Parts: sequence; C-alpha cells; structure tokens
Amino acid sequence: MRDVFIVGIGQTAVGEHWDRGLRELGAAAIRDALADAGMERVDALYVGNMMGGCLNGQENVATLLADAAGLLPVEAWKVEAACASGGAAVRAAALAVAGGAHEAVLAVGVEKMTDGVPDTVTAGLATAADQDYEASHGFSFVALSALLMRRYMHETGRERGAFAPFAVTAHRNAQTNPRAMFREPLSAEDFSSCAMVASPIGILDAAPVCDGAAAVVVCAQSMLRPHHKPVRIAGSAVATDTIGLAERADILTLGAAAHSAAKAYQAAGRGPKDMDLFEAHDAFTIITALSLEACGFARRGEALDLAAKGCVAPEGCIPLSTLGGLKARGHPVGASGTYQIVEAALQLRGEAGPNQIKGARRALAQSIGGHGSVAVTHILEV
Amino acid sequence: MRDVFIVGIGQTAVGEHWDRGLRELGAAAIRDALADAGMERVDALYVGNMMGGCLNGQENVATLLADAAGLLPVEAWKVEAACASGGAAVRAAALAVAGGAHEAVLAVGVEKMTDGVPDTVTAGLATAADQDYEASHGFSFVALSALLMRRYMHETGRERGAFAPFAVTAHRNAQTNPRAMFREPLSAEDFSSCAMVASPIGILDAAPVCDGAAAVVVCAQSMLRPHHKPVRIAGSAVATDTIGLAERADILTLGAAAHSAAKAYQAAGRGPKDMDLFEAHDAFTIITALSLEACGFARRGEALDLAAKGCVAPEGCIPLSTLGGLKARGHPVGASGTYQIVEAALQLRGEAGPNQIKGARRALAQSIGGHGSVAVTHILEV
Repeated sequence: MRDVFIVGIGQTAVGEHWDRGLRELGAAAIRDALADAGMERVDALYVGNMMGGCLNGQENVATLLADAAGLLPVEAWKVEAACASGGAAVRAAALAVAGGAHEAVLAVGVEKMTDGVPDTVTAGLATAADQDYEASHGFSFVALSALLMRRYMHETGRERGAFAPFAVTAHRNAQTNPRAMFREPLSAEDFSSCAMVASPIGILDAAPVCDGAAAVVVCAQSMLRPHHKPVRIAGSAVATDTIGLAERADILTLGAAAHSAAKAYQAAGRGPKDMDLFEAHDAFTIITALSLEACGFARRGEALDLAAKGCVAPEGCIPLSTLGGLKARGHPVGASGTYQIVEAALQLRGEAGPNQIKGARRALAQSIGGHGSVAVTHILEV
Repeated sequence: MRDVFIVGIGQTAVGEHWDRGLRELGAAAIRDALADAGMERVDALYVGNMMGGCLNGQENVATLLADAAGLLPVEAWKVEAACASGGAAVRAAALAVAGGAHEAVLAVGVEKMTDGVPDTVTAGLATAADQDYEASHGFSFVALSALLMRRYMHETGRERGAFAPFAVTAHRNAQTNPRAMFREPLSAEDFSSCAMVASPIGILDAAPVCDGAAAVVVCAQSMLRPHHKPVRIAGSAVATDTIGLAERADILTLGAAAHSAAKAYQAAGRGPKDMDLFEAHDAFTIITALSLEACGFARRGEALDLAAKGCVAPEGCIPLSTLGGLKARGHPVGASGTYQIVEAALQLRGEAGPNQIKGARRALAQSIGGHGSVAVTHILEV
C-alpha cells in the first residue's frame, strides 16, 4: 500500500443556504479543493451524502456533482454510512490511491437539510437507526441519544451540567472560524438553563440542522508538487456495531468507534498520547464523551473528568473540535466527516488562524453514524 | 494491482417478497455467498442499494446487513450510483482487494421496492434523474426513457416492434431460471400489442418493480482454495455523463457506458469480439439497444439489426441477459448490478444449467444508472 496525502481542501460556510442546493454546495467545495491542490482533474470522485434521497429527492448525487463540477466522465459514486458518510468517502478515496488504482481522488461530503420540513428532517435522521425496531416505533434520533445520556449520568453519578465544557469549547472555537454556523459564545450557565429537546438532551447538547459541503483531494507521492503542503493519511479505518441500541452488551461502550480507532492507531503506529488534537463527532455532548473514551483519551466513565480539567480546550492536553465541531461549526450530516478532515488538515498545515493549535503534527478525526453503529477514524500526520 | 477473483456467489429469488425486508433479503444473499466461498468472515462489506432512504426509511443499510449477517465489527458502507449501485459495490470490493487493503470482501446489492405505494416508487426512481431540471417538472423515469426511444425510432426509421427480440429473449431465458420473476414465454405479438406506459414504451419494454438481493465474495489469489471455482475480474470501470438528458451533445450515445466499457476492455486487454455473453442493463428495451452500441457490439443505430439477426439469443454471437436479465429475472434496482455479476459467474463456472452458454470463458456485465448518466462495466474471465 502506498502513502496517501491530502493536497487540496475546500469547504463552504455551514449554515442555512436557502439559495443553494446539493449541486451548488458540492460543486463549490470541489472547485475550492481542486484550486487548492492546483489540479484540474482527478481520477475519481467519491461523494459522502446521507439524505439526498429522503430530503432532496436526489440520489445519483455523485454523478450530479461530477457533472456540476465539470469532471465528466470521471468515475463517481456515493458512499453512505449514515452520519459518518463524509468520513467514509475519504476512506474510499484513500483506499483507491493507497492501492494504486488511482493517482488522485476527490472526496466530497455534502448535505442539504433545510429543504425539508422539520418532521421530514427528523424522519430522515431516524433512517440511521433501525427502522423496524427503533424508528418505526416513534424513536427519534435525539430520543435514542437521550437514553444513552441518561444511562451515562446514572452510571457515573454526574449531572447534565458536567457536559457543558464540550458545548462551551465548541462555541468558543467557532467564534473565530468564518465558516462556522454559530459564532456566539456560550457560558456554562447558558448550557445548564437551555430548553430541553428530549431530556436530558437540551438544545445546547445538540448539533444544528444545516447545509454545507467540504472536500479533499488525496493523491499518491508521485503527484506531490512544490506548492503542496501535504498532510499524510497515516491511518484510516471503519468498523461497525449493532444498529439497534438495545442489542449491545454495554450501551456505554461505542464498539465501532473503539474498533476503528484501534485499527487506525495500529496502521499509524501511534496511540492516543501522540495526538495533538481530536476532531470528534460531537453531534450530542454524550457522543463526544463516549467517543473520547472509545479513542482512549479517557477510561470508561471518565470523559467528563477530562473535560472538567480543561483538557479539551485549545490549550488543553487533547484539544477538541478546534474550529467549532459539529456543535458550533454545524453538522450537515453527510458532510461532517469531510469537514473534520479539512479542519484537521488546516491545523496540520498551520493555517488554522486564531484557532491554530501550536505545533500540531498529528490529528485524530472520528466520524460516527447511527448511535455509534458505524465509525470512521482517520489519523493525519505531517 | 493484484488479481481479484470471485469465489462466492449468492442470490435470493427476485419477486414481490411481502414477508421479507432489506435486512432479511440482504442477509440471505450474504449467507449464501459466504457458504459458497466456504468462508465465515470477510474484511469488508460493501452494499449496493439505491432507495433504502426513500422507500424503506432505512439508510445505514451496510451496518444493518453487517449486523444481520453476523459480520460485526466488519468495515461496512453503502455504495450508491442510482440503478448501477449493485455494480458499483462490486467495483468498490474489487478495488479494495486489488489494492491490497483487504484479502476478501463481500459486495451485496439489495433493493426492497414493494414496500412503497406506486407513486412513491415512481418518485424514488426519479431520484436518479436531475431533481431540479427533470423530476420536479413531472418527468418520470419511464417518460425520459420514452423520449430516448422515440428519438431512436425517428433517427433509425424503425418501428417499436423491432425492439421485440430483447424482451422475447429475456423471457425465454428466464423460463429456466428458478430465481427469475417472470418465467412465462413472450411472443413478438405479445410484445407488439402490450399496453403502453409512456408511448412508445409499453409494459413489455420495461423491467418490473420487485425485491431481491445478490452477493459476491471477491478475494486475492492467496485466499484461493481447492474447492473454489474462481472467476477473475479482468476489468472493472466506472464512468459518468451529464445527469440531465437534455445536456448531451448526442442523446443516442451513452457516453458513460462507452467510456466505462472502453476502460474495462483496456484493463482486460480484450475487445467486444472476445466476449462470450453480455449481461446488459435491459431496464428498458431502448437501453439494451444503446448499451449494445456503447459496448461495441453494434455501430450507432444498428443494435436492432443485430437483434433481428438472432445474435442476442443463447445460440447467437453475443448472448444477452442469459438468465432473464432485468426484464424477466427482475430489476430490484440497487441489486441488479450484483445479479449480473452472479449470473455471469454462474455461466463461467459452467453452472448455468439449461441456460448454460456453451464454452463461455469471458463475460461482459454493464450496470447503468440514471439515463446512462453513470455506468459500471465488468469483464469476467476463467
């Protein structure tokens, strides 16, 4: 297997793009990534997208974007792994280059959620759960996450307020990210007093419904040029767990996240201590906590202690969601995994501006689908 | 790149499976393919599926099937390329093994169409077209194909009856395929007098709405065992064309089909004359004609002459849809591309029973999405 390098990154702002659809958002991110790489063509285009079919009446999204971005007749297909689709598209691109099938591949994640009425979005997100045994019985995605969070609080004896550092840090980091959706600061008091969505999950535990697209160009060593600032994909792995939450032996261990992290660490020859930052899948504060534990940054039940010590802040031992994360940069679901990779690459290129983590050389990015039923983990390195 | 071999195949019968959903159909095909390969585990599972989101309220289908088939925590994601999704999943599997990332990978195509009311299925299929410029204006998938067929008849001066051999051959071949949906013979007269759906497309030009799943295990040479009857994937390629039909310089040339066929021929070091059979994407008779031309079996506008000469029959020069094709075996859209590969493998293993093409050593399979906007071509060889 060959080394694979990220040499181009592109992203749209995340927000409610009432004037742009899947086509315009995706093509904009693709054009930016190609321009950044100084390339006009790639050998393949893999698109991460979850809800084009349910929300936008648009499947065949990869062809749509190949066409819109002027890349025809390029090889193109969509990769879907629920909310981890964007990470899985990067995985597919890395596989194709590492194996020698292609020299340069573009992975783009895109999601357009604001076209749907609220009920449709809720139903669309629930397609990541088990339709027969969860969603069709009325469980929404938030409700299932609320069960997880309630159990975590029960087992650890912690109150909801202990989750505040995750949301507060995300909003703090997003303030200086021009592409973030929520750039206003948040206090621990705001967090504690926010409206409930599905108790104990409040509105400030949850990432927003939004639109956006992010893209990366990955290539083989032979394609590197002097103007590139290559970021190597040192580890890339996907793993799965039961789709139904009730089927797990221990619902507070995200098995897919732990397995994919272990495989990525092994491929990179690194461990949690070597990571300078962690782009986590902070769709809900409880998922951030469980992801930190699955990736070995905290032991089972101890992620909130890590947060309480200030470890997840930019100056902490494992800076989290350094440009706002899903919580404050926004969570256009099928695109979020690609945003993570773009942001981690910005950090490793030293181009994160006021959000720069000093001396960052290695980053972990973990994209999670369903309630941890699928996870994609990448380790990036310079 | 390493050689890749198909060593396991599995399929459910195609039909209206009112008692089985995506989970049961997909898992059944996976189990059969694993049993045929004599394997219990694979390194990854790639799932071809198009309409899980719109019709079944189920995305995250790859995790669903990994779970249902007892393969957790295997790497799993879904591949979508409209009606070519099943072919694209095989492509993803072949890429991962050829490149050395995995030793054995399972690709499964699955679709469950009968759960939706007819309007939902029509809308679901239209998601393969351009939502903004085609589907949202009321174009159904059949209507767009009817425009193609009308133009073909205009340019070639042929009547609708000249398309009969494609449907007649498909039904003839399906009679002896126990997994086919339509096993009754069809005469040219039946074809000519059938009810119109969207003139000139009649009910007997079109493949049916149905359910089914088909799976293949592909592996590297080092995994071959004495009990295997390996079929080598000699060529595998994907290409795209404009998603909107009106955007093409020549709507009667399927550019994506031609490009992907050319790439597959080049990879295999073979040409149309070397092929012993052709599993075509006969979703509509017009698509069969255009696919035959795109793959070099006939010149532009001459596919109907080829059919009139009896060339597409089992004893002809390029036997078509040898186990019934999309038309008569059935077209569970995201699964059809995988069925083609399973059936071509059966032929090359000499296990096609009464449908066996004598001495078959090389097969072409082409899976097409949208109106030729994406195409996946495979060449198999023994």
